[in-house]
Amino acid sequence: MAVASSFPNEPSAPAMKTSIPGPKSESMRAELSQIQNAETVQFFADYEKSIGNYIADVDGNLLLDAYTQISSIPIGYNHPDLLKITQNKSNQTLFVNRPALGVFPPSDYAKRIRESLLSVAPQGMHNVMTMMCGSCSNENAFKTAFIWYRTKQREGKEPTQEELESCMENKPPGSPPLTILSFKGSFHGRTYACLSTTHSKAIHKVDFPALNWPKASYPRYKYPLEEHSDFNASEDRNCLAEVENEIYTWNKKGCHVAGVIVEPVQAEGGDHWASNSFFRNLQNIVKKYGTALIVDEVQTGCGVTGKMWAHSHWNLPQPPEIVTFSKKMLLGGYYYKSDLHVKQGYRIFDTWMGDPSKLVLLEGVLKAIKRDNLIENTQNTGALLLGELKRLEKKYPAFLNSARGLGTFCAVTCCDVSTRNKIITQIRQRGVNLGGCGEQSIRFRPALIFQPHHVEAIISRFEDVLNSL
Amino acid sequence: MAVASSFPNEPSAPAMKTSIPGPKSESMRAELSQIQNAETVQFFADYEKSIGNYIADVDGNLLLDAYTQISSIPIGYNHPDLLKITQNKSNQTLFVNRPALGVFPPSDYAKRIRESLLSVAPQGMHNVMTMMCGSCSNENAFKTAFIWYRTKQREGKEPTQEELESCMENKPPGSPPLTILSFKGSFHGRTYACLSTTHSKAIHKVDFPALNWPKASYPRYKYPLEEHSDFNASEDRNCLAEVENEIYTWNKKGCHVAGVIVEPVQAEGGDHWASNSFFRNLQNIVKKYGTALIVDEVQTGCGVTGKMWAHSHWNLPQPPEIVTFSKKMLLGGYYYKSDLHVKQGYRIFDTWMGDPSKLVLLEGVLKAIKRDNLIENTQNTGALLLGELKRLEKKYPAFLNSARGLGTFCAVTCCDVSTRNKIITQIRQRGVNLGGCGEQSIRFRPALIFQPHHVEAIISRFEDVLNSL
Repeated sequence: MAVASSFPNEPSAPAMKTSIPGPKSESMRAELSQIQNAETVQFFADYEKSIGNYIADVDGNLLLDAYTQISSIPIGYNHPDLLKITQNKSNQTLFVNRPALGVFPPSDYAKRIRESLLSVAPQGMHNVMTMMCGSCSNENAFKTAFIWYRTKQREGKEPTQEELESCMENKPPGSPPLTILSFKGSFHGRTYACLSTTHSKAIHKVDFPALNWPKASYPRYKYPLEEHSDFNASEDRNCLAEVENEIYTWNKKGCHVAGVIVEPVQAEGGDHWASNSFFRNLQNIVKKYGTALIVDEVQTGCGVTGKMWAHSHWNLPQPPEIVTFSKKMLLGGYYYKSDLHVKQGYRIFDTWMGDPSKLVLLEGVLKAIKRDNLIENTQNTGALLLGELKRLEKKYPAFLNSARGLGTFCAVTCCDVSTRNKIITQIRQRGVNLGGCGEQSIRFRPALIFQPHHVEAIISRFEDVLNSL
Repeated sequence: MAVASSFPNEPSAPAMKTSIPGPKSESMRAELSQIQNAETVQFFADYEKSIGNYIADVDGNLLLDAYTQISSIPIGYNHPDLLKITQNKSNQTLFVNRPALGVFPPSDYAKRIRESLLSVAPQGMHNVMTMMCGSCSNENAFKTAFIWYRTKQREGKEPTQEELESCMENKPPGSPPLTILSFKGSFHGRTYACLSTTHSKAIHKVDFPALNWPKASYPRYKYPLEEHSDFNASEDRNCLAEVENEIYTWNKKGCHVAGVIVEPVQAEGGDHWASNSFFRNLQNIVKKYGTALIVDEVQTGCGVTGKMWAHSHWNLPQPPEIVTFSKKMLLGGYYYKSDLHVKQGYRIFDTWMGDPSKLVLLEGVLKAIKRDNLIENTQNTGALLLGELKRLEKKYPAFLNSARGLGTFCAVTCCDVSTRNKIITQIRQRGVNLGGCGEQSIRFRPALIFQPHHVEAIISRFEDVLNSL
């Protein structure tokens, strides 16, 4: 009820006037192609006409959106609370006077961070840095881990003169041969260090030089989980053994592993999940070697798995060292444990250090989540969605398998890549916007206001498409 | 006249009530320190009360700002044109519905880019990518150069199967040993590849692993230029010889130099300028080796040197391959020559790809620049500012030397670091906000609405401080 009250005029069903992309989108894409590569554009959107779970395009189509700008719209299009925030005169001064937050922050900035980001901090974490996007959050998380690791190696002392001089030449000991361990199949962003820890698709990586840092396998489970518990448990064991072996080997050869970065779900890589006990054991290994556990919650954060942070499902005895975020949080950043506090200024720094105009919008998002019980809504809606996907995979076993998810963060695997692409294209013609992930999976990434009747609207069209294959 | 008309109520002089930082700033800093390192915070600003060239702080002080959020406020605080843009309902939908620009761009996005970014593109450049900030602009500029260089090496062919497979392991040939040459003393950002090309201060770099890519010296001129023309010309020759030697050596050892990144002025590094002929010769060398010339205009762009782009002063026979921007442009990005067009989608890509809410503000900035002749204003005001700095260095030769600049992008060097810091601290107590750069320089980075009477207000206080030393 509360969920629906923000969008009394949300349409009851998709409405299609043209195929997608329609003629206006096609002509705008041709125009954009003169300026930059526009091959990836699916359609041009009319954001004034979009509402709630529905995205409008420039050809007059209205689609139910369960992809939401690659999972980055938290509470639907044109949420009245957020529009109200932009109409507030005091907020408008934050939109037009963008501060260098590290030097001249706006009045009461600490209070605002406390009431927004810290009010939803992962348990046991009381520190946070704001950034611009997921990539720079991960880049700065790595830097924070490197400072922490080197400071421990120096037993708390400041960098030496030799370190200060050699780093200017990009040489050790000032630029030490530290590494970050990542998992095969992961996605952590596109800047140099992030891309070196990203291993989801070759098209992201080819032709770019990269850091040959340690990598370990991430579990690849068989579904349904309950029918494959032995196999899946052995996946956990094998992957964890790889992690420990890589850390041991790299440390021994002098390229210490300062951090391990991991997604709670390998999303872009194909919605691969790992068990809670996998992560608890991973933390044990990481602790044994004095390494930082960096949990990348850029896609899994902000309530979509039915908890504010996906890693809260794991019941870790202690928090991870760092948790990074972006997307639905509207701005980037990372929470960190207080022993990773950086003592000197200007080490983690840039001109803007985030964007308060996004923070004021996040305040509105978090208030709506709380007031309208959107996380509970996501649990309930997600349970229905997963149940329906399981029903479909039983009914259409030649096409679908491995339905999986938590909250509305769900996916299903198709029999092959061409069937996957066909389903996504054909369901879009029926007014449902979905995204692919990995080689042959379909991912559901709706906003937190996605409700049972939206699930029904999608599933009936999904079934139409499956019947037509 | 036109300049002043946007701010009829701009104060006529700074007004100080407390020392800086005042008690409220101090207490807010203490509070922020509980959450993150706040050592670099100079004061907390009241952005609602800031206006034009004046920044207000939370203790009731009003300072004339010639530092402008590390050079990132283009047309002053609370410009009425920009406030009007935030009040427009159609723009508000862009603020609350942030699109994934590479997939679902807003209606008429190409037209908006053409009328904003492309309307001020460097001569001969018709392509542009939008990004979030300076660092990700440079990171993606490097990636664009790498794709271009490798595609030339493959004679235009697509990546091979072996390349696609090896890049997933971060190994050659898919992850090739390409490099970017940078200059000692440069600043290009803080993410991994950017930081590896940044060599301004050790505190930015120490404890972080880095790419040991080629480096060359950037000229270090003696001032006044006209009295040291032989020495300065030999600086140019020596630095250019280093560039050529580095490219030759690195290419020969198989780590090809795909790009050379350079600032028109090494700003953060200390406001080091190089001559127009240095850059013309640099382009000759770069062309000879088939390398991309990447001009980092993050700080020098958007009119501050008296032209929209600082590199336009050089009279290059052809445009550089890439020009990156951010700061005063409000969003990041880069212009590039059409032969660097990337043919395949998803290679230069991320979730947001910039931010249309910044683009609509940039539209307002560019309109104001044109309507109010703000670049001409910057030329005139800058000439006065540089003249005054030259007068001061003659009057106070024990304290100041090497006054230099173009437009309002001016600097002066102090006799030592403690004098520099003393001047910046003491002039701030008199109501003028200035920034340091390099070891012992003071940089002037006012907005484009900085006028002769603002110069006079600063210089009289500067002289007061010098007299008190």
